[in-house]
Amino acid sequence: MIEKEVKNAASGESEGGGRIEGRNAVTEAIRSGMHIDRIFMLDGSTEGSLSTIRRAAAKADIPIKFVSRQRLDQMSETGKHQGVIAQTAAWNYADIEDLFAKAGEKGEDPFFVLLDNIEDPHNLGAIIRTANVSGAHGVIIPKDRAAGLTASAAKAAAGALSYTPVVRVTNIARTIRDLKERGIWFVCADMDGTPMTQLNLKGPIGLVIGAEGSGVSRLVKEQCDFVAGIPQRGEINSLNASVAAGVLMYEILRQRMA
Amino acid sequence: MIEKEVKNAASGESEGGGRIEGRNAVTEAIRSGMHIDRIFMLDGSTEGSLSTIRRAAAKADIPIKFVSRQRLDQMSETGKHQGVIAQTAAWNYADIEDLFAKAGEKGEDPFFVLLDNIEDPHNLGAIIRTANVSGAHGVIIPKDRAAGLTASAAKAAAGALSYTPVVRVTNIARTIRDLKERGIWFVCADMDGTPMTQLNLKGPIGLVIGAEGSGVSRLVKEQCDFVAGIPQRGEINSLNASVAAGVLMYEILRQRMA
Repeated sequence: MIEKEVKNAASGESEGGGRIEGRNAVTEAIRSGMHIDRIFMLDGSTEGSLSTIRRAAAKADIPIKFVSRQRLDQMSETGKHQGVIAQTAAWNYADIEDLFAKAGEKGEDPFFVLLDNIEDPHNLGAIIRTANVSGAHGVIIPKDRAAGLTASAAKAAAGALSYTPVVRVTNIARTIRDLKERGIWFVCADMDGTPMTQLNLKGPIGLVIGAEGSGVSRLVKEQCDFVAGIPQRGEINSLNASVAAGVLMYEILRQRMA
Repeated sequence: MIEKEVKNAASGESEGGGRIEGRNAVTEAIRSGMHIDRIFMLDGSTEGSLSTIRRAAAKADIPIKFVSRQRLDQMSETGKHQGVIAQTAAWNYADIEDLFAKAGEKGEDPFFVLLDNIEDPHNLGAIIRTANVSGAHGVIIPKDRAAGLTASAAKAAAGALSYTPVVRVTNIARTIRDLKERGIWFVCADMDGTPMTQLNLKGPIGLVIGAEGSGVSRLVKEQCDFVAGIPQRGEINSLNASVAAGVLMYEILRQRMA
């Protein structure tokens, strides 16, 4: 069931995913319900047809990023973007129930990984890959201000997208609140948190990883039950986001196996 | 002392490191003893001045990669490569004694990380970064068929190169043999090895990480005292090299702290 949900939605693109350019094409794509990661739109334009696309995107909950004409020209493959380019997802997203189903199939307590605004698609892909290998049941990412399941992310995931469901939600903090009511405990990563080996990370758990650089946002952190730190023994004090996520996922697995 | 050794050797390049093009310039660079990561040379040429560079490079232990004219043209910034381009390191390399000195300064058993042909400079940089944060005393990489300390690697290392010495050796297997005589135990990473938590990884240790895809080479593996595996609980069976290295470094640190 999960494999069906998470099938490749590539539409003629060699790597899966791609760009849709021009006002009519983007309008049609939104109307068809296609998975669109984000829309790039010319900044400052007041033209009516762009406003219509803006409203349709807002209704479909698709993030819009306003950029310069120069940026659009660079992104454009056709040279005829008309002020709007839609970035489509290479893979379909799953539903939160697919994550519970995956845990149920394996007869295990849920183990979910939540990403609070990871922006680099390579980090996103590497985290999904590690989530699969370490036995996590799925990954939850936000719709806005974060990398989506683009071709680059799929490549870095090295096949894990065929097995590990990825859910996209509007608000990570609200999702945590909802999942807490279903019995899941949340631990967020912060270099200054309690050393991870001193926390009890067994049982149904959601691991929250923050953005590269800025870490877990305050609103999300407030929702977490614990803050887990990775021990530091050197002169610099932060890890690459996918490495930090891997170290924490494996600490959770170690405690589960103990 | 180590910081002096590992200082930035950028020579006018904004990101550090760079390319030296043309026969005279490359010949002079070799003669001056400059840190050259590798030389790209036109494949199939029998011209005398290129043969002279080839011999000088071999004597200075600089790897040569033979490539097509098209490739050289693509790499060239001046358009006048004359069949030879040298890739210089962004950072200077340290000496093996610097690693022992770093362990001595901290009053700890040596903890070294050896990379058996990591090819992606981002992985190399992320591993050096994790080595610093997890308390390893240095990183050892091979001269040939591996990423060197280029500007990309330095960027991914996020400042760790100012503190963590990186040594480049001709032969990883021989280096392991030498270091074993100085009391260091070697553990190599392999997904099929003994689960890492079941091994005793305390004491003076060298952690050997294999290449992306192919893993640790047979000759290197034969030199190792243990083979450590990372537990797998999913459908796919390999991690990104920098994530795998991070998980193992933190298992070593966990055992050291216990």
